[in-house]
Amino acid sequence: MTYAPATGAFAEALRADLPPETFRPLEPRYTEEPRGRWQGRGGLLVAPASVAEVATLVRAAGQAGVPIVPYGGGTGLVGGQVAGDLTDPLILSLERLNRIRSVDPVENALVAEAGVILQVAQDAAEAADRLFPLSIASQGSARIGGILSTNAGGVNVLRYGNARDLCLGLEAVLPDGSVLNGLSPLRKNNTGYDLRHLLIGAEGTLGIITAATLKLLPRPVRTGAAMLAVRDPQAALDLLNLARDRIGEGVSAFELIGRAGLDFLTETLPDVRLPIGHPDWSVLIDLGLGASGDPEGALTSLFETAHARGLVTDGTIAQSEQQRQDFWAVRENIPEANRRIGSISSHDISVPLAAIPAFIADGPGILAKIGDFRINCFGHVGDGNLHYNVFPQSGRSRADHEDQREAIKSAVHDLTHSHGGSVSAEHGVGRLKVGDLERYVDPTKLLAMRAIKGALDPRGIMNPGVMLRAR
Amino acid sequence: MTYAPATGAFAEALRADLPPETFRPLEPRYTEEPRGRWQGRGGLLVAPASVAEVATLVRAAGQAGVPIVPYGGGTGLVGGQVAGDLTDPLILSLERLNRIRSVDPVENALVAEAGVILQVAQDAAEAADRLFPLSIASQGSARIGGILSTNAGGVNVLRYGNARDLCLGLEAVLPDGSVLNGLSPLRKNNTGYDLRHLLIGAEGTLGIITAATLKLLPRPVRTGAAMLAVRDPQAALDLLNLARDRIGEGVSAFELIGRAGLDFLTETLPDVRLPIGHPDWSVLIDLGLGASGDPEGALTSLFETAHARGLVTDGTIAQSEQQRQDFWAVRENIPEANRRIGSISSHDISVPLAAIPAFIADGPGILAKIGDFRINCFGHVGDGNLHYNVFPQSGRSRADHEDQREAIKSAVHDLTHSHGGSVSAEHGVGRLKVGDLERYVDPTKLLAMRAIKGALDPRGIMNPGVMLRAR
Repeated sequence: MTYAPATGAFAEALRADLPPETFRPLEPRYTEEPRGRWQGRGGLLVAPASVAEVATLVRAAGQAGVPIVPYGGGTGLVGGQVAGDLTDPLILSLERLNRIRSVDPVENALVAEAGVILQVAQDAAEAADRLFPLSIASQGSARIGGILSTNAGGVNVLRYGNARDLCLGLEAVLPDGSVLNGLSPLRKNNTGYDLRHLLIGAEGTLGIITAATLKLLPRPVRTGAAMLAVRDPQAALDLLNLARDRIGEGVSAFELIGRAGLDFLTETLPDVRLPIGHPDWSVLIDLGLGASGDPEGALTSLFETAHARGLVTDGTIAQSEQQRQDFWAVRENIPEANRRIGSISSHDISVPLAAIPAFIADGPGILAKIGDFRINCFGHVGDGNLHYNVFPQSGRSRADHEDQREAIKSAVHDLTHSHGGSVSAEHGVGRLKVGDLERYVDPTKLLAMRAIKGALDPRGIMNPGVMLRAR
Repeated sequence: MTYAPATGAFAEALRADLPPETFRPLEPRYTEEPRGRWQGRGGLLVAPASVAEVATLVRAAGQAGVPIVPYGGGTGLVGGQVAGDLTDPLILSLERLNRIRSVDPVENALVAEAGVILQVAQDAAEAADRLFPLSIASQGSARIGGILSTNAGGVNVLRYGNARDLCLGLEAVLPDGSVLNGLSPLRKNNTGYDLRHLLIGAEGTLGIITAATLKLLPRPVRTGAAMLAVRDPQAALDLLNLARDRIGEGVSAFELIGRAGLDFLTETLPDVRLPIGHPDWSVLIDLGLGASGDPEGALTSLFETAHARGLVTDGTIAQSEQQRQDFWAVRENIPEANRRIGSISSHDISVPLAAIPAFIADGPGILAKIGDFRINCFGHVGDGNLHYNVFPQSGRSRADHEDQREAIKSAVHDLTHSHGGSVSAEHGVGRLKVGDLERYVDPTKLLAMRAIKGALDPRGIMNPGVMLRAR
């Protein structure tokens, strides 16, 4: 398709139709991806303050054939929020659509506009004595619209699901400028196709989410945590099932930590205390129970049973909230340690739980054929989502391995695919993984996606080049 | 659209292409809806035994312009499984696609073909010490394909969600005969549009689900139940939130029971014991906890707190599994009592939780303008899904009110809609509620549904007349 630029008469007409504060200077952050992979080529930045203004903008762009790049918090890791090689697109920032419209603790629902920052939504829930459980590293700047458009994940997916599982309803502007009014908080509603789940995870290619009804949950009032050394990754899986059998949904997080991550901490952040030293494999279990629960008792009993079965070789149970925070500091500082070491290639992958041990066992041999690397494998094993990052040996730098990066990425993705896994677990496809999608996804799915895209966005104006190759 | 019949050369070509056992006699159950609302006009009944055979049938029907009516267990309550006024369609029964392909307790996933009966899937999960929690009245005959196509609900939605929330992946034949291979059990997978959620709840209008990967959960090993009289419906909601604050996700079911249901039991099934007599409003709370849980203690403490707050006026906590079953017998016999009384009109509706008290308060006055009725309102209040059934006064019969049925239905649906509710909570749209969908659903949604239908099924062969009016 050929597109018109958001310049000249088109821009002038918009300026006549919309309040002046809609138009903002095009600062570099709107066109540059955080890691510098894509550079913008201009564009008209608009920040509408109402759904009606979003609809006006989308309708005008559709009529003129101007491409639209929706922009949330700008924290995406696959380039879905930047214009790629589009020249002078309409960059539509949701930052002024930032009201929390309602918080209802009886309904257990919160209605947030797309520009609300995740942390703000979490805080609003807490003020009503409720939990909005989605938790990701970028929650201080990521916005609800982008979180839903990428179906963000995070550490609590095991218990609470992905972003899509926490969204009861959506308001959105479709590519023809019509407004989808679907903010109903209903838990049971079987009236027609579920457009909510189609828009969630569509990365702005089927319309612009303008507001969402988010699901609130009871706040776990009794929390606990344990850091346990496990025999091997298979034992971690067996321990997970044992924990869920005994404690049910109270298991909020179950994080696998490989020895490399602990070694990296000692190397780069020696102040982080390691409660059980440097075991080859360990897990951080986090519990959140109701007022009648006993997390410490449950963890003690779990530890005893798991130890008797040979799953767990060592471990410690937090005796205070401070100690629980210390355990989490280990897990949460691993990404910073990774940054300081400097990875050659990082991978956001998932595999079926049952395939995790074989996947972990296969990786080193396959990578050894490419070069001499260190591997840090860790992550949300409770939902099969591993961070699988490849590093230079000590004394070398990522720059020494530039020419091997593509080979490493392909090898890890091929290995993931061969185990039935996904090459985008929680970050999405964006511009980065368009080729991966074409390579790994079911061909029937890809054809159906193109058919749906063509039906809802026949002019192809919504975030072209993201997820599906622009034609 | 005009359709070709599944007769003559079309049928002969199929007989040449497929094994003889694919073709079965067209017994009345395949063309008649259980309550006799629709009568069939012939058709060719086929029961393919593999996905490849389904694909062959769909491709042939698409080329010839023959409409397809998919048939699962035949238990649907809105006519989605019958041909309506189509003449000689291809009736495609999934009954021979009835293998459980795998049960994996590590993965917590079960792969079932579309023709597997729900009870069989539940039993297979239990044999692996896992729970498949979907539970509906027709589980002895409803099949997985139909359950997913209608996004069935049931009593455990509060805790475990609807059918869509319990499905990790799908295999399906799309209207062009291509096979969508999406049986991955991955919990985190952000590679493209979520076609799974589009097919779930589409009632066979976008393709035929042939198999599904179902989510398994830990079996709650410590169960408990309480039957509590509440001050009013608002107190029931407050009690629900109190229970969830204290017990978290361990609350498996929370059923509201109005006095009319208890009176109907006494009138028609006097052997059913009523543990706390005939309060105006009562709730049945069911708990399922892990091995370390104490359901009786949790319910006792809940009762004491709720009583002190004036929410609960009376109640009893099950002291044994037998007593828990007795409590459930009250709830589960209410539909049978309803049948014996004979409703004039029944409604599968949901409203936002916060709107339940006002909805319940408004109903009698609105119906009194139409006639003199008894109302039995009960159901899954934990997820806003009420069964709202209207009965004749004692001594009169439903036949006396035939001419008022449409007015009652419209009044209840209008009232539901005015409270932000849904006129199809868990049964779907089918043929019965096509007009309701047009009347109550967001117009943008309806247009988008038609666009998607047109893109994936341009010849309109998949279950025409269901959900969307045939054009």
